Amino acid sequence: MLTLNENFLHLQQNYLFADIAHRVSDFQQANPDVRLIRLGIGDVTQPLAPAVIAALHRAVDEQASAETFRGYGPEQGYLFLRQAIVEGDYASRGLDISPEEVFINDGAKSDTGNFTDILGRENTVLVTDPVYPVYVDSNTMSGRSITYAPCTEEGGFVPALPPADAPAPALIYLCYPNNPTGTTLTASQLQEWVDYALAHGSLLLYDSAYEAYISSPSVPHSIYELPGARRCAVEFRSFSKTAGFTGLRCGYTVVPHDIVVPSSGGTSVRLSDLWRRRQSTKFNGTPYIVQRAAESIYTPEGRAQVRATIAYYMENARIMRESLIRLGLHVYGGKDAPYLWVPAPQGMDSWTFFGHLLHEAHVVTTPGVGFGPSGEGFIRLTAFGHREDCLEAMERIGKWLACPSVPFQPAGEGKASSMGGI
Amino acid sequence: MLTLNENFLHLQQNYLFADIAHRVSDFQQANPDVRLIRLGIGDVTQPLAPAVIAALHRAVDEQASAETFRGYGPEQGYLFLRQAIVEGDYASRGLDISPEEVFINDGAKSDTGNFTDILGRENTVLVTDPVYPVYVDSNTMSGRSITYAPCTEEGGFVPALPPADAPAPALIYLCYPNNPTGTTLTASQLQEWVDYALAHGSLLLYDSAYEAYISSPSVPHSIYELPGARRCAVEFRSFSKTAGFTGLRCGYTVVPHDIVVPSSGGTSVRLSDLWRRRQSTKFNGTPYIVQRAAESIYTPEGRAQVRATIAYYMENARIMRESLIRLGLHVYGGKDAPYLWVPAPQGMDSWTFFGHLLHEAHVVTTPGVGFGPSGEGFIRLTAFGHREDCLEAMERIGKWLACPSVPFQPAGEGKASSMGGI
Repeated sequence: MLTLNENFLHLQQNYLFADIAHRVSDFQQANPDVRLIRLGIGDVTQPLAPAVIAALHRAVDEQASAETFRGYGPEQGYLFLRQAIVEGDYASRGLDISPEEVFINDGAKSDTGNFTDILGRENTVLVTDPVYPVYVDSNTMSGRSITYAPCTEEGGFVPALPPADAPAPALIYLCYPNNPTGTTLTASQLQEWVDYALAHGSLLLYDSAYEAYISSPSVPHSIYELPGARRCAVEFRSFSKTAGFTGLRCGYTVVPHDIVVPSSGGTSVRLSDLWRRRQSTKFNGTPYIVQRAAESIYTPEGRAQVRATIAYYMENARIMRESLIRLGLHVYGGKDAPYLWVPAPQGMDSWTFFGHLLHEAHVVTTPGVGFGPSGEGFIRLTAFGHREDCLEAMERIGKWLACPSVPFQPAGEGKASSMGGI
Repeated sequence: MLTLNENFLHLQQNYLFADIAHRVSDFQQANPDVRLIRLGIGDVTQPLAPAVIAALHRAVDEQASAETFRGYGPEQGYLFLRQAIVEGDYASRGLDISPEEVFINDGAKSDTGNFTDILGRENTVLVTDPVYPVYVDSNTMSGRSITYAPCTEEGGFVPALPPADAPAPALIYLCYPNNPTGTTLTASQLQEWVDYALAHGSLLLYDSAYEAYISSPSVPHSIYELPGARRCAVEFRSFSKTAGFTGLRCGYTVVPHDIVVPSSGGTSVRLSDLWRRRQSTKFNGTPYIVQRAAESIYTPEGRAQVRATIAYYMENARIMRESLIRLGLHVYGGKDAPYLWVPAPQGMDSWTFFGHLLHEAHVVTTPGVGFGPSGEGFIRLTAFGHREDCLEAMERIGKWLACPSVPFQPAGEGKASSMGGI
């Protein structure tokens, strides 16, 4: 008799973005003439870079002739791309990563979701709060016990290490530059986590999907800049935000050979060997044409084009940031990340602030509480929109703040977390 | 303290295709002037169809401009493709499948490997022997208990239902047309499995990756041709072999709404809802350009081009089949599938036959024992080669059989299965 993985029944039933879509759709149906500006979901809007488009066309043409056709590729990814990554993202910063430690995927979401397949279900998990929901949901599906490290305004959005007398979590997820808060950690703050992981035999799962947005010199670009990280940290990178690959699907994961885990039988196992075995069983590689597209990002022209697009988004972020500050709001993030994290005025809760912005400013945002209880009272804005939309959104928010058509609701009832699952 | 998923340590350590590659490489190094003909791995050799190439170029161009750029798509796949599939593969055969029941993926390997994420680990598993290794390895990784239904020459390669007094397996994997034997089941043979699954509350996981190669009118194209299958069967399809997408990566899975599983808490859960939740957490959709490529297969010109390529491969199969029979060998498969399953002459074991063909005929095959103990004594040949290679391979095998330079080794030692993991 068939049984379910009943851990799935413990997942949150209402999904944040579906919930938002529902409210937005209700509003739009009641107000069909209103043009909404969407600064909620973290999807890019600029087209692929010309170098990427050219690489795609070339690779497609290769697939049109028997002489150059490529079928199954290596599950771990083509060496041409793994070498480009090692040279472009690691050797160029003096970091020692080999192509054998790089695993190409169809986007960071797949690997952050699947990586713990190779780890025991009894491992405990620490995530920050607020948090990217995939870390929580994928571990809930495996029945793992999850604890939260709150990242609060008072604490500068820096997660605190677990208390010395608490059992150490086996798995620690960190995402920097952070989604959703847009904040970063300094090298010394990150070093504390590396040292903690080494001291306690924990594994750091380091998501740096937004690495390309870093401009401050003090912010590490890779966890491997920190001494000891090669022995305790896996790094997830993505071309989704770096190069607009959200619809093209490619990223990569670095699993250093130095991460060795003892088995109960007394043998020691390289984590990279287990991950390779997992991928060669349950994954068949990223499309050849997409890997050629990713390779093109590392050419001089590709790099320049991709940087120009990032600069465009970060100019959006600067405009939004400075506008909101001029309007009297506090703003976090938006300096080394494409996200702005904005406390609601007058103690409003997230959904109330979201509702005002939707109904009165006609701007769609993401309620912070959707990312975890410590996100209550905040909204997230993304810088991935078109320039004119960002400018107009700021104007609309300014008008609404100057003259709200509905009086602000006091904070209260809405404060109760709706995050049943996380 | 971090622990591993120690089920991984129970996996077979030597991988069939890596083992073959090693032996082939050793031979090639010792004999650099020999041109080997590779009829071992099931990868296609013909280029993508012109309709697919044109669709890819068009979709790439859409990604070059902000007006037509597409970022994140629906995790379940674009509706344009799900509708084309429903109309082209199901409605056209009078089968009632809705687009909401179709899940687009990056290839059938991912979904056959990941599908049991949503099922309890206590579910027992039945697979045929020989078998596509992904079913075995993915369930070994989850710690599930696996039993085998032998498919033997004497039994016509038809798996027998479990004995009436044995506990019924919760999960049953069937792959038809079969990889590796190239054999098929009739509708009445398949109906027995559907009836068994319905009677015992089992789930059929039906892999029909080779459906497009069926030419015999008596062979079902879809499990849903059988009454009752909508209540007990998931179907996996792939564009890899249908349309040469091995390097492009796209397939789909059908999870009918009628499959409803009771939870221990007494509620009933639609399996499709659980799979959608899994995919939206751990997968971010197949590339837009690849989905447009897949859509093009369902146009009249795409369909005609794809059929012509399949006819080319099946003409290879006919040539190989008839040649080998003329040479005095038995041949199974190769009529409704691109695989030929050939018993070794004179009771040789699989690896010995493989070795003779490699060293003396300079043809690379796959030893049947690599797919399971019941594959011992067979080799698998694929029809995916170039025509001239197939012809030359048959000539070389004929010459070797007529005049072997090394006397045939008797069967014996090699008979012991090397399939520790499966």
